[in-house]
Amino acid sequence: MKTSFGSDNHSGAHPFVLKALADANRDYQLSYGEDDYSSRAGEVFRSIFGEHAQAFFAFNGTGANVLCLQALTQPYHAIICAETAHINQDECGAPERFTGCKVITAHTEDGKLRPEHVRPLLRSFGFQHHSQPKVISISQVTELGTAYTPEEIQALADLAHEHSMYLHMDGSRLANAAAYLDLPLKAITTRAGVDALSFGGTKNGMLMGEAVVLLNPHLAENFLYIRKQSMQLYSKSRYVAAQYLAYLNHGLWLENARHANNMARYLASGVRKLPGVTITQKVESNAVFAIIPEYARKKLVEKHFFYIWNETTGEVRWMCSFNTRKTHVDAFINDLKKSLT
Amino acid sequence: MKTSFGSDNHSGAHPFVLKALADANRDYQLSYGEDDYSSRAGEVFRSIFGEHAQAFFAFNGTGANVLCLQALTQPYHAIICAETAHINQDECGAPERFTGCKVITAHTEDGKLRPEHVRPLLRSFGFQHHSQPKVISISQVTELGTAYTPEEIQALADLAHEHSMYLHMDGSRLANAAAYLDLPLKAITTRAGVDALSFGGTKNGMLMGEAVVLLNPHLAENFLYIRKQSMQLYSKSRYVAAQYLAYLNHGLWLENARHANNMARYLASGVRKLPGVTITQKVESNAVFAIIPEYARKKLVEKHFFYIWNETTGEVRWMCSFNTRKTHVDAFINDLKKSLT
Amino acid sequence: MKTSFGSDNHSGAHPFVLKALADANRDYQLSYGEDDYSSRAGEVFRSIFGEHAQAFFAFNGTGANVLCLQALTQPYHAIICAETAHINQDECGAPERFTGCKVITAHTEDGKLRPEHVRPLLRSFGFQHHSQPKVISISQVTELGTAYTPEEIQALADLAHEHSMYLHMDGSRLANAAAYLDLPLKAITTRAGVDALSFGGTKNGMLMGEAVVLLNPHLAENFLYIRKQSMQLYSKSRYVAAQYLAYLNHGLWLENARHANNMARYLASGVRKLPGVTITQKVESNAVFAIIPEYARKKLVEKHFFYIWNETTGEVRWMCSFNTRKTHVDAFINDLKKSLT
Amino acid sequence: MKTSFGSDNHSGAHPFVLKALADANRDYQLSYGEDDYSSRAGEVFRSIFGEHAQAFFAFNGTGANVLCLQALTQPYHAIICAETAHINQDECGAPERFTGCKVITAHTEDGKLRPEHVRPLLRSFGFQHHSQPKVISISQVTELGTAYTPEEIQALADLAHEHSMYLHMDGSRLANAAAYLDLPLKAITTRAGVDALSFGGTKNGMLMGEAVVLLNPHLAENFLYIRKQSMQLYSKSRYVAAQYLAYLNHGLWLENARHANNMARYLASGVRKLPGVTITQKVESNAVFAIIPEYARKKLVEKHFFYIWNETTGEVRWMCSFNTRKTHVDAFINDLKKSLT
Repeated sequence: MKTSFGSDNHSGAHPFVLKALADANRDYQLSYGEDDYSSRAGEVFRSIFGEHAQAFFAFNGTGANVLCLQALTQPYHAIICAETAHINQDECGAPERFTGCKVITAHTEDGKLRPEHVRPLLRSFGFQHHSQPKVISISQVTELGTAYTPEEIQALADLAHEHSMYLHMDGSRLANAAAYLDLPLKAITTRAGVDALSFGGTKNGMLMGEAVVLLNPHLAENFLYIRKQSMQLYSKSRYVAAQYLAYLNHGLWLENARHANNMARYLASGVRKLPGVTITQKVESNAVFAIIPEYARKKLVEKHFFYIWNETTGEVRWMCSFNTRKTHVDAFINDLKKSLT
Repeated sequence: MKTSFGSDNHSGAHPFVLKALADANRDYQLSYGEDDYSSRAGEVFRSIFGEHAQAFFAFNGTGANVLCLQALTQPYHAIICAETAHINQDECGAPERFTGCKVITAHTEDGKLRPEHVRPLLRSFGFQHHSQPKVISISQVTELGTAYTPEEIQALADLAHEHSMYLHMDGSRLANAAAYLDLPLKAITTRAGVDALSFGGTKNGMLMGEAVVLLNPHLAENFLYIRKQSMQLYSKSRYVAAQYLAYLNHGLWLENARHANNMARYLASGVRKLPGVTITQKVESNAVFAIIPEYARKKLVEKHFFYIWNETTGEVRWMCSFNTRKTHVDAFINDLKKSLT
Repeated sequence: MKTSFGSDNHSGAHPFVLKALADANRDYQLSYGEDDYSSRAGEVFRSIFGEHAQAFFAFNGTGANVLCLQALTQPYHAIICAETAHINQDECGAPERFTGCKVITAHTEDGKLRPEHVRPLLRSFGFQHHSQPKVISISQVTELGTAYTPEEIQALADLAHEHSMYLHMDGSRLANAAAYLDLPLKAITTRAGVDALSFGGTKNGMLMGEAVVLLNPHLAENFLYIRKQSMQLYSKSRYVAAQYLAYLNHGLWLENARHANNMARYLASGVRKLPGVTITQKVESNAVFAIIPEYARKKLVEKHFFYIWNETTGEVRWMCSFNTRKTHVDAFINDLKKSLT
Repeated sequence: MKTSFGSDNHSGAHPFVLKALADANRDYQLSYGEDDYSSRAGEVFRSIFGEHAQAFFAFNGTGANVLCLQALTQPYHAIICAETAHINQDECGAPERFTGCKVITAHTEDGKLRPEHVRPLLRSFGFQHHSQPKVISISQVTELGTAYTPEEIQALADLAHEHSMYLHMDGSRLANAAAYLDLPLKAITTRAGVDALSFGGTKNGMLMGEAVVLLNPHLAENFLYIRKQSMQLYSKSRYVAAQYLAYLNHGLWLENARHANNMARYLASGVRKLPGVTITQKVESNAVFAIIPEYARKKLVEKHFFYIWNETTGEVRWMCSFNTRKTHVDAFINDLKKSLT
């Protein structure tokens, strides 16, 4: 496959990340998080997310999310999220199974949960027959490519905390949000009241690796056991820590995310005014959602790889990544134009 | 840490494995197991384990074991293993939690489960109050470094199958067993009646990656969902598949395992006759278990990293790996000699 | 509390049921379902639901539902039900926790799931990231007091079976449906394609006891273990079996349900035309749902016990039971009239 | 079956208990524990177990045990008990499944766990790979009919508390222990350091019903949700509360237990000196364990119902209950004598 607009995980890894692996491939290191690279990564995470932040590596996004949710809940709790949330749609029921909790969803237009969606669901406190709401979970950026402002996050955090609940953020594309908002990571996490964060690396240039960042310090007490029992503990942990060091130091995460966002914006601006094309979501990260005529889609898909997002409406999703090239986008736009005629 | 005899996962990755990652870092690839590398790896696994073998990658050994056990059980089943089994001792209860099953253990002298250990536990079939035995799980090589012969495995497989049970093999060090026995992998798995295999790569030269190999073809039907829900599905799956291709092609797995075994044997032979040193287990793989005087241990540990295996008896474990060098073993033996005086 | 329109479980037990307990309180009996009463009850269930029906007692409605769902699912499955379903709203997340499944809901006006609600949710088959739909679960009568016709049930059963799925029926008030429809129990269960049934007794005159009735014969194979492990196995099982014998023989179940339904209809007809009173659901069983002015509700509640169903709309629920007396309903209607002025 | 020495749950219910059900079968009562009987029962429990004791009814012994264990643990914990413990042997793996914990057992001669059994298992604290010991669980009386003294309980409680662990007591036959020791219930529970108690009623004259008594007040905070989600919440709760009121008031529990114990002692004394009969356990409650010749057993079993406890040794268990009559025991002894000749 020469190019793909199917997913940001169709791309490989950034060369700096690969180089970091090679550099880490020396000597002996303790395993299971006790290696030197993990220690150094811990410091870097604290420098970014605040001195109380505690970072723990996990294997994949589903793992990071489920670990966070386990740290925040008991089985009789409920987790509130947008209908489109990865934890609701794309984890084959892992959150329900491994937390025991009920997942309660709200319909949103743009993937962003707002206090008005959540408030009607904050009920049944103290009623033994009903799962007790305990977590509000949001994705930054959302699965529809939209970004929460710090104020929007803070409003949800306040709502959660008023009800002795927690705010979880699925940040598998957190870097894209920070790039879009032009804000430090801390501004849209720690400072905005997030309690537990899944911070992704894989979709933005790493080979593999996600981090659970517990911003609320008392959550970390028993987290090592949760991670181990949940089958998310690396043996040769140096190799994920080294990737994160390469990713976080010198701003690689930001550079990659900016590029991916720029490519999506460039793509969107190139197709927005074409007759028959409707961009369906704000382009606030590396995704473009659009509706195009079926005949055009069928022609386009012969040349470029992408997914249909919604079978009913024919909406498609075009994803850019850190290594999407402008020439590829130009070719894509060109082929879309041709397909429309 | 310059050297370690603490664990085979204190070593890095083999250069060929790293090179394979770099080679795979080209172009775009589908994710979640649909990449070209995964397809090719599937073929290689079939060529090794038989045409019905179906391989699925997992992140770590605990993950691979729990996935296998899930494929073999319902929650009201029991899993029988040696007391020393990794699934019993070292997975923080993950098997119980994620299968719902009871884990029933037998005491063994050398980590090897034998029919006479298992038979007394094959009871209560049809009695609704008791967990129903469904899986015999063995480790090849065992956590005590000993290896099962094909005949020993077949005897357990027969016993399992006679009772409509399955035989699971935790092969996190399967390569070391094959090297020791000088037999193809198939001879100690598929041909010996194993139903489901966790086939490790991490401890023998990969960065990270384990494979679930389902040898009993009907077990695979719903395995993709089990893996996904259990948080063990790689996104950029090419990177584990490429590692396995490098590991399995051209015999790297065997070469690495042979070397590690040789180093352990060399170490054992160098210390076996020293006064005060008792080798406690047969050296049939890359581990040496020994009891040495406490004063000696305290001196030795200042120079070399290794773990105490048994606090009560003072037994220690010295592990070799694919990149343990003979000079390091010589230095170790020398320092042990000094420490004993 | 002299009377209650709060719930049908605010009533006591029917005298025949109590007498059956006393009669069963003789001699010694085997326990755990091996008593004579359980054998006889098994026959009665087969005579009612068909020769392949297998009945297993459970303690309560949540228990019976979760047992059924366990018999029908694996953890990577999804269960589809109405938003108002007891399994979704009123079981504190037990279905999610003990099956591991995702519960997917559809909004309905009257608590009745229809094929047009379900069809859009029958997606993602074979897609490893999504929970696989496996069960359609309906309540007969619904939590809103409405009843499914046999044709409506059959349509859902057909839809389920076309997709290799099962139809589960929460029949905690099945008797009320049969009474309303004037049909034998079999016509709205076995013959209508139901695979697994939770058949309630508690709300209609028993002290305590529910039955899981597996209509699809192959579902029962391992059910004893599921029940025992799920903490739903009676020790002195004669006492639930004897209750069911009293309940099912001589039509006590039907007589009780008819009476309760009649009282609800009588109540509804007495208040339907009062100014300010809106009956919000069809009265097809023993429940009346209505909206009345807040000032009236506050007066009425001083004299009669009932629950607010919906805090937002002020909708209330008035439940009748087998021992609701006509004079009580008259008094209730009278007091409602007064409260409205 | 005219008599049974098979189990104390082969007996019916005491007439006072049945009468209490009939007396409670009046008027309307709130459900789910909010009825008047439950309130009164709560007071009675506090008067017996201390002012901080909080009692919650459950359906059966397995349910009560699993509820207690859930209140005491997180999934990464381990529960330590005797190999013979009901939670280990007779609950079809419910504790593992519903707590997620590992159950670790010690071999005992008489079913009684002692500090020397437990101490070697109190290891791995803080080691992320191992389940963390959190609960010591004992049965009073044990499954072998033996009773713990208050001092023995206190020693285990102290050991648990020194390690920030809890002591759970499976008291499905607690009454028999109190009767044997001639001590108030409080002396062998609250005062001896027990944190959570499963207090049985079924085996000693109730129809059905067990109580979870949380003696450590902070354990109760979220218990209502645990019970509901675990499918152990009665709807018409008055009927279990009323049974407990009859059972606890006026000493019925003690009278029943004394009688059962006396019958067992009488049986034992009548057979102890018979040639070929070996009483294998101390008779400290209502059970007699014995080994008799196979030919005798085969003859005896034609006339009397009882179970073989151990297939290997031929050990049998003879259970007495509150309604075992002296004449039945005499007949049993007589028949045993005959069978031995």
